[in-house]
Amino acid sequence: MADVLVQEGEEPKLSKKELNKLAKKAQKASKAAEVKMADVLVQEGEEPKLSKKELNKLAKKAQKASKAAEKGGNQQQSASDEQEDYSKDFYGSYGLVNSKEKKELNFLRVKEVTAANASKDIWVRGRVHTTRSKGKNCFLVLRQGVYTVQVAMFMNEKISKQMLKFVSSISKESIVDVYATINKVENPIESSLSLPLPLPKLPLQIEDASRRAPTDEEKSNEQENQLAVVNLDTRLDNRVLDLRTTTSHAIFRIQAGVCNQFRNILDARGFVEIMAPKIISAPSEGGANVFEVSYFKGSAYLAQSPQLYKQMAIAGDFEKVYTIGPVFRAEDSNTHRHMTEFVGLDLEMAFNFHYHEVMETIAEVLTQMFKGLQQNYPDEIAAVGNQYPAEPFQFCEPPLILKYPDAIALLRANGIEIGDEDDLSTPVEKFLGKLVKERYSTDFYVLDKFPLAVRPFYTMPDAHDARYSNSYDMFMRGEEILSGAQRIHDADILTERAKHHQVDLVKIQSYIDAFKYGCPPHAGGGIGLERVTMLFLGLHNIRLASLFPRDPKRLTP
Amino acid sequence: MADVLVQEGEEPKLSKKELNKLAKKAQKASKAAEVKMADVLVQEGEEPKLSKKELNKLAKKAQKASKAAEKGGNQQQSASDEQEDYSKDFYGSYGLVNSKEKKELNFLRVKEVTAANASKDIWVRGRVHTTRSKGKNCFLVLRQGVYTVQVAMFMNEKISKQMLKFVSSISKESIVDVYATINKVENPIESSLSLPLPLPKLPLQIEDASRRAPTDEEKSNEQENQLAVVNLDTRLDNRVLDLRTTTSHAIFRIQAGVCNQFRNILDARGFVEIMAPKIISAPSEGGANVFEVSYFKGSAYLAQSPQLYKQMAIAGDFEKVYTIGPVFRAEDSNTHRHMTEFVGLDLEMAFNFHYHEVMETIAEVLTQMFKGLQQNYPDEIAAVGNQYPAEPFQFCEPPLILKYPDAIALLRANGIEIGDEDDLSTPVEKFLGKLVKERYSTDFYVLDKFPLAVRPFYTMPDAHDARYSNSYDMFMRGEEILSGAQRIHDADILTERAKHHQVDLVKIQSYIDAFKYGCPPHAGGGIGLERVTMLFLGLHNIRLASLFPRDPKRLTP
Repeated sequence: MADVLVQEGEEPKLSKKELNKLAKKAQKASKAAEVKMADVLVQEGEEPKLSKKELNKLAKKAQKASKAAEKGGNQQQSASDEQEDYSKDFYGSYGLVNSKEKKELNFLRVKEVTAANASKDIWVRGRVHTTRSKGKNCFLVLRQGVYTVQVAMFMNEKISKQMLKFVSSISKESIVDVYATINKVENPIESSLSLPLPLPKLPLQIEDASRRAPTDEEKSNEQENQLAVVNLDTRLDNRVLDLRTTTSHAIFRIQAGVCNQFRNILDARGFVEIMAPKIISAPSEGGANVFEVSYFKGSAYLAQSPQLYKQMAIAGDFEKVYTIGPVFRAEDSNTHRHMTEFVGLDLEMAFNFHYHEVMETIAEVLTQMFKGLQQNYPDEIAAVGNQYPAEPFQFCEPPLILKYPDAIALLRANGIEIGDEDDLSTPVEKFLGKLVKERYSTDFYVLDKFPLAVRPFYTMPDAHDARYSNSYDMFMRGEEILSGAQRIHDADILTERAKHHQVDLVKIQSYIDAFKYGCPPHAGGGIGLERVTMLFLGLHNIRLASLFPRDPKRLTP
Repeated sequence: MADVLVQEGEEPKLSKKELNKLAKKAQKASKAAEVKMADVLVQEGEEPKLSKKELNKLAKKAQKASKAAEKGGNQQQSASDEQEDYSKDFYGSYGLVNSKEKKELNFLRVKEVTAANASKDIWVRGRVHTTRSKGKNCFLVLRQGVYTVQVAMFMNEKISKQMLKFVSSISKESIVDVYATINKVENPIESSLSLPLPLPKLPLQIEDASRRAPTDEEKSNEQENQLAVVNLDTRLDNRVLDLRTTTSHAIFRIQAGVCNQFRNILDARGFVEIMAPKIISAPSEGGANVFEVSYFKGSAYLAQSPQLYKQMAIAGDFEKVYTIGPVFRAEDSNTHRHMTEFVGLDLEMAFNFHYHEVMETIAEVLTQMFKGLQQNYPDEIAAVGNQYPAEPFQFCEPPLILKYPDAIALLRANGIEIGDEDDLSTPVEKFLGKLVKERYSTDFYVLDKFPLAVRPFYTMPDAHDARYSNSYDMFMRGEEILSGAQRIHDADILTERAKHHQVDLVKIQSYIDAFKYGCPPHAGGGIGLERVTMLFLGLHNIRLASLFPRDPKRLTP
């Protein structure tokens, strides 16, 4: 992409700029407008520029004054030499936009600045992505979401020296309104007006934050012109700026898509959305890793999962429920895939006779979701891949279901020493994912029948072999994204298992009571939203998939 | 509804019951089945019963044995006198359903038990809603979600005395599987098999919990046969049972509908769903009413709203965002409309020149939502109205927008003494709602331009009158459901206002920093999900609209 003005044969152009800071009648922004990836994406670190030939062409013709300057502005900040500034009515700062008056500027979206709209006089609002000033001309790249467009200004009878100076001094990331003509060849500029100026020194540059990290090979090549890459902490410390990158926009649109797909698929299957409380009277998972909350004169805890509440909804005859909400884990884990707060996509379902009715449903739901994401977000997936290259996510239908003992056998056959009832460590999980990918060509699979000893107290033991349980995990690219099981729905057995796990019975009494008045057999699972996003896209750190991540060391912003 | 077997001319009937507790091949339950209100709703407290004539008809003919008894059961609990019990293979308990084997019982949903399926031999699973035993016959009402069906059994050559005794002793709320023929007139019964029996003594009866509370007039009439009504605390203490009522099912389906409508309407308008963290480093609303959390060696707080994060997403150029999630308020308010944890439907939107662009959008979104709810949930709304009678929710288009000073004038004209810059107390809000309803025939309206003094520090002051602000509340049936405003998007003014409100600047530094790098003007609001549900339906207490409510005195279940 050598030139954002000429995109893949379409030649979207922005020219003739006229500023009118003056009042016009109120008109609401187009609310139906959607920001979607297209061919105007800013590519990593390549500076959008015009060729000399094009610059000459552009400079050829000046444009006559805007007919729009209807009223004199009263918040105008004049350029240095006001007496001589014949453009003074065509630029300036809005000052604080505090809804003083309703205005009617019919903004075109940056993505709509295309050849199809050539010759139109338009208003456009965008951020100053880059500025380039050179003698008697000035070029701004305006950014709106993931779209950019170049604006060209040349000194002429409408555009004064002072105006050019004003425009070229606008800080990056300022928001400006521009009045201009979209024109394929003739692009004279007349005016520009900016919203309040942000601080000139940015803690990170959007271009740097958008750049692909060098591969190890590239690093070792000692290239002369290696460009800055923003590290994760700097990104997160300045998350608002980092969120402005194309990659961040794409990641969080895909993440919204995960939630949307999950809900739509479950709604179509007759599930009901419920809301589970986050403040609870007792640790839900046995007491470890729970955050304590001061609750008036007493104390309470933050829910480590909505599970008990999903189950109570099942006992309340809701049959199939799901809930999306925050989940809290006071684990002092500082890894690429742990956070202290994350979003759980949880579901629970009554079944007739066998928990596989549920397990298979969940695996189908996820498979359907992967398909939906690939269908609906191809541009976003590609945009993320530009900065964080990854193999496309692969899955098979029907989903692969592997029995735990078979996984152990597969691992042993490949040199891993592991006992029948051992849990899988993270590296072993990853290795297993690699073996599964080689053998079955899928990045997604289900591991069924975990050893009872490694699962929570409410997990139903296997009916045939006391060492195992009716529980399962699901994996993406070798990392766990879901943990689930048939839950014990009998109060007596639940009490017995809770005792065995040394859970304080007094504190979970209302949970146990829920099963005293008849509860259908049921199973379910909890999915980590950020893990799904991270692993679907092949990101290397879960924090990239959390808008404002929380870990043992990060509570801000 | 004198007889659930004969519904409004449709005569759905369930007859010929045969029990087969024995293994059949695995077949998954229909996952596409949806529970919807229909004409088989159990009405308040009226006992479903058959007329004598019908009973005679039903008893007339016995049915031959089930062809289904294929295998001997091994978990069977025999009746008292096994030698003489010729039905012993046709009833019993499943024992624990721990996924020992996959079975293939093609259950019909209770709602599908209609005349259209007459003469079919079917399996049906449901809860024992009521039992009525009388000499040589026995009637069960089975309930599945909000649907019920009556099952009739008569002693005959297939149904032994012991079997009848077993069935008539099944506790209410047990889950039973029944094999039967749907038949308009001939309904002999053969067998019944129940899942593990819940405790026989229920802390509340589903019929009692479903009953409409008597009006004051009814109470004063000292009727002889006033029936038990379950009070709120008993309901909430035994929420799992209370959730089984038709009313609870309807309330939470409508609540899921509120979320669904909100998201769909905003998605169509180009909003992006985001997730905001709940653990934060500083109180977001100025320090009062915030829950403190132990966070490793330090402490943190629970977010009182996602507002700062929505705003940072706007500063990150997401333009229009929404989020649905829990909101925490450490207020010691024990009222009908306060909870310490509730679900916020929050949205935030950049605008071009005036916050009314946003305010009007929100009011339109809510209006569209009301329409969607009335269109999609008429049966659920009617079901709730049966137990909690209320006038249908009324609204106008376009939505009514009232200026604060005009509201004050209206109140004064109706005898309320109130200052120009006073906030509205709850009773005054309600009275205002009444006046608005009388004058404008709407239960929904927007109150615009609140006094600056009564709003949070981040509220944009009015550009023309320093006493007021660019802020608004929205009301349903005279109670506030949304609070919103244009936010200050300028770091310096924000700092100044925070100081004025004595907010600790150090703690909100990352919030203030978010506005240093350019932020478009924006406004938004937060809606209380449970309040919308409560007020749309005209419920009298917000706890009825929360699955597991939290207040200063309630942390369980």
